[in-house]
Amino acid sequence: MDFNIIRIARTVINVKDLDRSKDFYVKALGMIETETKDNCVYLRGLEEHTHHSLVLKKSETLGVHALGYKVEKEEDLDRLAELFQSKGLKTKWLKEGTQHALGRALHVHDISGMPLEFFCKIEKAERLLQRYDLYSGARIQRIDHVNCAVPDVEKAYNFFINELGFACSEYTTIENGSIWAAWLHRKQTVHDQAFMNGDGPRLHHFAYWLPDPLALIHCCDVLASLGYSQNIERGPARHGLSNAFFLYLRDPDGYRIELYNGDYLTSDNDFEPIRWDLNDPRRQTLWGAKAPDSWFNETSPFLDIETNEQIQSMSPILAQRKPELVI
Amino acid sequence: MDFNIIRIARTVINVKDLDRSKDFYVKALGMIETETKDNCVYLRGLEEHTHHSLVLKKSETLGVHALGYKVEKEEDLDRLAELFQSKGLKTKWLKEGTQHALGRALHVHDISGMPLEFFCKIEKAERLLQRYDLYSGARIQRIDHVNCAVPDVEKAYNFFINELGFACSEYTTIENGSIWAAWLHRKQTVHDQAFMNGDGPRLHHFAYWLPDPLALIHCCDVLASLGYSQNIERGPARHGLSNAFFLYLRDPDGYRIELYNGDYLTSDNDFEPIRWDLNDPRRQTLWGAKAPDSWFNETSPFLDIETNEQIQSMSPILAQRKPELVI
Amino acid sequence: MDFNIIRIARTVINVKDLDRSKDFYVKALGMIETETKDNCVYLRGLEEHTHHSLVLKKSETLGVHALGYKVEKEEDLDRLAELFQSKGLKTKWLKEGTQHALGRALHVHDISGMPLEFFCKIEKAERLLQRYDLYSGARIQRIDHVNCAVPDVEKAYNFFINELGFACSEYTTIENGSIWAAWLHRKQTVHDQAFMNGDGPRLHHFAYWLPDPLALIHCCDVLASLGYSQNIERGPARHGLSNAFFLYLRDPDGYRIELYNGDYLTSDNDFEPIRWDLNDPRRQTLWGAKAPDSWFNETSPFLDIETNEQIQSMSPILAQRKPELVI
Amino acid sequence: MDFNIIRIARTVINVKDLDRSKDFYVKALGMIETETKDNCVYLRGLEEHTHHSLVLKKSETLGVHALGYKVEKEEDLDRLAELFQSKGLKTKWLKEGTQHALGRALHVHDISGMPLEFFCKIEKAERLLQRYDLYSGARIQRIDHVNCAVPDVEKAYNFFINELGFACSEYTTIENGSIWAAWLHRKQTVHDQAFMNGDGPRLHHFAYWLPDPLALIHCCDVLASLGYSQNIERGPARHGLSNAFFLYLRDPDGYRIELYNGDYLTSDNDFEPIRWDLNDPRRQTLWGAKAPDSWFNETSPFLDIETNEQIQSMSPILAQRKPELVI
Repeated sequence: MDFNIIRIARTVINVKDLDRSKDFYVKALGMIETETKDNCVYLRGLEEHTHHSLVLKKSETLGVHALGYKVEKEEDLDRLAELFQSKGLKTKWLKEGTQHALGRALHVHDISGMPLEFFCKIEKAERLLQRYDLYSGARIQRIDHVNCAVPDVEKAYNFFINELGFACSEYTTIENGSIWAAWLHRKQTVHDQAFMNGDGPRLHHFAYWLPDPLALIHCCDVLASLGYSQNIERGPARHGLSNAFFLYLRDPDGYRIELYNGDYLTSDNDFEPIRWDLNDPRRQTLWGAKAPDSWFNETSPFLDIETNEQIQSMSPILAQRKPELVI
Repeated sequence: MDFNIIRIARTVINVKDLDRSKDFYVKALGMIETETKDNCVYLRGLEEHTHHSLVLKKSETLGVHALGYKVEKEEDLDRLAELFQSKGLKTKWLKEGTQHALGRALHVHDISGMPLEFFCKIEKAERLLQRYDLYSGARIQRIDHVNCAVPDVEKAYNFFINELGFACSEYTTIENGSIWAAWLHRKQTVHDQAFMNGDGPRLHHFAYWLPDPLALIHCCDVLASLGYSQNIERGPARHGLSNAFFLYLRDPDGYRIELYNGDYLTSDNDFEPIRWDLNDPRRQTLWGAKAPDSWFNETSPFLDIETNEQIQSMSPILAQRKPELVI
Repeated sequence: MDFNIIRIARTVINVKDLDRSKDFYVKALGMIETETKDNCVYLRGLEEHTHHSLVLKKSETLGVHALGYKVEKEEDLDRLAELFQSKGLKTKWLKEGTQHALGRALHVHDISGMPLEFFCKIEKAERLLQRYDLYSGARIQRIDHVNCAVPDVEKAYNFFINELGFACSEYTTIENGSIWAAWLHRKQTVHDQAFMNGDGPRLHHFAYWLPDPLALIHCCDVLASLGYSQNIERGPARHGLSNAFFLYLRDPDGYRIELYNGDYLTSDNDFEPIRWDLNDPRRQTLWGAKAPDSWFNETSPFLDIETNEQIQSMSPILAQRKPELVI
Repeated sequence: MDFNIIRIARTVINVKDLDRSKDFYVKALGMIETETKDNCVYLRGLEEHTHHSLVLKKSETLGVHALGYKVEKEEDLDRLAELFQSKGLKTKWLKEGTQHALGRALHVHDISGMPLEFFCKIEKAERLLQRYDLYSGARIQRIDHVNCAVPDVEKAYNFFINELGFACSEYTTIENGSIWAAWLHRKQTVHDQAFMNGDGPRLHHFAYWLPDPLALIHCCDVLASLGYSQNIERGPARHGLSNAFFLYLRDPDGYRIELYNGDYLTSDNDFEPIRWDLNDPRRQTLWGAKAPDSWFNETSPFLDIETNEQIQSMSPILAQRKPELVI
C-alpha cells in the first residue's frame, strides 16, 4: 500500500434534538464541547488534540454519515481515491472548507456499501488531558473504534486487510470456519473497525476510551442520578474478546455508544490473531452474562454519501442469530 | 434493653464437598482458612481478628445453621435467654467447648422461627489486614450482613426493633404501606440483618465487605478465569437501597453470597430510615437492570436448633412477587 | 457513663477570606455548600444528612473553635455539664438559636485545656449520597476525625477513655512505655479523636472520609489543575497506623485537612488496641516515606470558649521530636 | 528509512543473586517467570505474547546489556547494520541460537556509545492477559520504555529522530532552548526511549505498564508487607510530563524500575511535541512533590557489546543539576 490510514477519527450522526443530545454527551458522559455552529455540535474527548471526534447534526432523519478516518499525508487521499475508483466504488471529493474544521476529504462507499470518509487535516483544539478540574461523567478520553454490521463479513474483512492495510487482532468463526465477526486495527489498539454478521451495512456502535474502570462505574451512577438509567443497555462487564471492561448505552436517538477500557497493545506484526468460537460464552462476556436481544437486533442506518438518504441494508449471508451460549 | 448485641458474626452452612467449597471461598474469593478440623473448614476475612466468620460443615443435607450474633458480655446471653423464654420461644444452651473456637452459646428460634445464635467469646486469630501479600480474589475483608426471607416482615421487623434493639436504616413498602422488606443494624453500617417478604424463614444470602469497587471487578475476572462464570448470578451493579456496589454469587452448593462495598455510616440515632417503593426501579438496581428470577425465587433452608432438620417454610402474607419495574 | 457521645460532628475555623476558602473546599475538594450566612459558610459531605460538618467563619484572627461532638439525647448534655463541672473544668451553655442550625450546646475546656462542644440537635439537610452528578474533586463523604497535639497524651487518653467513654483502637509508645500518641473512637471507625505529643492543645488536622482510593488520586490531579499543588503537604500513601490511604493538605489559611479512606470496623469491645513503636517506620507510612518537618511542627491554635482568644499552648512532657525512622 | 523498528522489547541486566532478584520481580511485582536456564531468569508481563521482556543474568559485575528493540522484518536488521556501519559505529552479529529464545540479533553502540540490540524473532509464550487468577503484586502487563542518561541529549535526539525514525512526544528545554530531556517513541505510546542530560551513557530506569492506578497502590502495599518499603524511591504520584501515574522502585541490586499507567495514544503524525521548562514544578510531578536526590544522581552502567565491561561514562555538556523547583 502506498498510503497510511492512521486511525478512526470521527463519526457524524443526525440527531433530532441538539440540546437533548448535548445534555447526554456532555453532562452525563463528560465529553467536551468544542463549539456549536450551523446546527451542529462538535464534541471531543479530554485527550484529543483535534477539533472533534463526534458531530451531532440536527436533522429530522436519523442516520450515520461516512465514518471518518485520518490519514498521514494529503497524497494518501489521492492514492485512496485511485484505489476505490479502480474497484468501481463510488467516490466523492469535498474541498477544504466544505466541512467545518476539516481539510479536503474523500468520501466513498466501500465493498460493503458502507460510507467512509478519509481526511488528513483537521483543526487543532486545546488538549485537556491535564485539566482534571474539567473531568466529569465517564471522563471520556478519545474515540476508540466503530463496529458495523455487514451482510458478508469475510468480504469486508478481505477488503480492509488486503486493500486498506488493516491488521486483525481477534475474530469469531462459526462451525464451518466462516468468519462471523472480526476486529481490525490501524492504530495499535485492538481495533479501529469491527465487523459483525448482520443486516447491513449498518452501524452497531461507536466507542470511546476511558482512563480506568472506575470512570465507567461512576458513569453508571451519574446516568442513574440524571434519569438515564434506561439508557444503559448492557454491562458493565468484561468482554472475553478484546479483554475490555465495557458499558453499552443508547443515546437519546437510540444510537449505541460503548464506553471502553482495558484492551492491549497491538504493535507487533507477528502477533497471531485470536480466534473465538461464536458459541463460546466467554467471548461476549467473560463473566458469562448474556447480552439482551436489543444488542443483537438493533442497529443504525448509514446515509448515502451523495443523496444523504438512508442506505438500504441487505440480509446477511450467514444465518443471523444470537449466539447459543451453551455453558 | 439490658443487653448489647454487637453484630452479625458468623454463618455455618452444610456443604456436600469440603474441598470443592474451600476452593471456591479461598481460591476464588480470597478468604483465609484459619483451620480445617473435624469435617469443618473455618474461614475468615482479611480484617477479622476473630477465629472465623464462616464455617463449612460437611453434610449430606444442605441447610443453614443458626445465624451467629456476637454480644458484648457473657451476662447478655442470660438476658437474651430470658427474653426468648418469656416470649415462649425455643432456646438451647451450648456450653463452652461444644462448638470449636466458641464460648458459651445460646441458640434460639426467633419470632419467625428462624434459628439464631448468640455468643460473647470467640477465639482470636491473626488479623491480616496489612498482609497485602496474602490478598487475592475479592480481597474479602469482613462479614457484613445476612438477608432472610420471612413470611411476615412486619412481625420480624417489630421483634428485632422492639425486643432486640436493632435500628432500621432503609425499608421497602407496597401500595398499602405494608413493609415488604427492611434493613436493620446493630453495628454502624446499613445492616446486620435484612428481611424480605417470601417463603420462609429461609436464608436469601450472607454478605461480605470488600475494600473497594475494583476488588469486586477483579473477582469477576478471577471467577471467569477459574471456570466459575456461571456462579455469577447478578451484578456487578449498584443497589439504590443501601447504595452498595454489589455482586451476587452462588456457591458450589447453591448458597448465595453477596460481595458488597460502599454503603454508609449509621451512627446517628436521629437518622431517618429511608423508604422505598417496591416498584421503584432504582431501589433494586440504581442503574435500572432487573434481577434474574432465580434471585427472587431461590433461597436456602434453615436447620432446626434441636433436630438439625430443615425447617419447613410458610407462605408469605404479602403476595410474593418480583417487583414490577415500570419505568 | 450515663451519657452517649455519638461521634465527632463538626469543626468551626476562622478564615481570612471566605471566597478563597470556599473555592478550596468546594471547587477543589468537592464539599457541598449548604448555605452562606452572616459571614459564615456552612459545608457538608455528600453522605451527611446534617446541615454541616465544617463552618468557615470570617475573621482576622485565625483559630479553631470548640470541636463539636454530637450526643444521643438532650439529657446527655446535662450529664456532661455535671461531669466537667465536677472536675473543675470551665463550661458554658449556648441556648438553641445562638449558633445557626444547632440546638442547645455545651462548650467546655477539657483536661488538656482543649475546647470541646457537645450538642444533640442539628438541622437536617438533603443527603446527596446518590446525587452522583454532583460528585466532584475528592468526593468528600463525611467528617471522620480530628487529631490534636497535647502536652500530656496519657492525661488526655485517660480522660477520654475513663470519663467520656471512648475506646482505643491503636496507640504509639516510646522506649519507656509512655503513650506518645493515641487513636480513640466513639463511632465504629478507628477514631473520632486522636492525640499526639506536642505543644498544645493545638489542632493538628481534621479529616474527611472518601468513598475509594481513586477519589483521593483524582483530587491530587484536580488540585494540580487548579493551581493548588503547593497545598499538598504529604501523601498519597498508606498509614501503618489505622491502615488508611491518606493525603494531607494545607488549606489557604494553613489549616491541615486529611483525606482518608480504608480503615476498619471497630465494633467489637474485645478488639485489642494495636501498639506501635514510635520509631517503627511502618507506623507513619506503611510504604516507608518520611513525613515532612512541617507535618510535625506546624499546628493550629484553639480559641478560648469565653474570650475567643487563642489559647496559649504548653510544652509537651515527652520530648517533642520527629520519629527516628531507623530502617 | 527502509526499516521498521517496532518497539522496545527487552532489557538484560546482570544481578548478583538470582533468587533474591526473582523474589522481587515475581513475588512482589507479579511478573511471570517463563523459565530459568543457564544462570538466567526469563520474565514477562501478563499481556506479553513473547518469551520474555526482562532477563536476570547471574554475574558478579553489575551492568545493563544492550537494550533490545524488536523490528518488523529480518531484512530490517541488515539495513540497520548498514546504517550503523555507515556512521562508523561498532556493530556485532549474534547468530540465531546464540541468545536463548531469540533469533538473529544485531548489537551496536549508538551515537552516545549506548549499547543497543535489534532482533526480529523471539519465541512465543502463552499470553496470560485473561488468566486473572495469576494476577498478583503490580499486575505487570508489558514493557513500556527505557530512560537513559546521556551527555549530549540533542545529539542522541537527532540520531533517534533522523536516523532511526523515532517521533518525539514531549521534551524539556533549559533557558537557552537546549534540549535537556526528550521522550521518543516508535510504538504509539509516549515513549519507547527517553533521554535525560547526565553522566552517560547510563541507564536511568526501565518501565512496565500496569492495567490501572489501583494496581500501583496495591503494589506499594505488597512491597511493604514483604519488607521492601525501602525499595520505594519515589511516588506514587503523577508526572506532568507524559501524564503517567508512576512509582519508582530500586530492585535488590539498585536497578531502577518504574511502574507506569495513564499516558496517551501517540498515533498522529501531526501531534505537536509538548515542550516543558526544566524548572516547571509540574513537569516532574504534577502534584508538586520533589524527587529525591538519588533519583537524579544514581544510574546504572551499560556493558560494552564486545568486552562486556562497564562502559565509561562522560560528563554532560549541559550543567548536570536537579531542577530548581521555584514555585
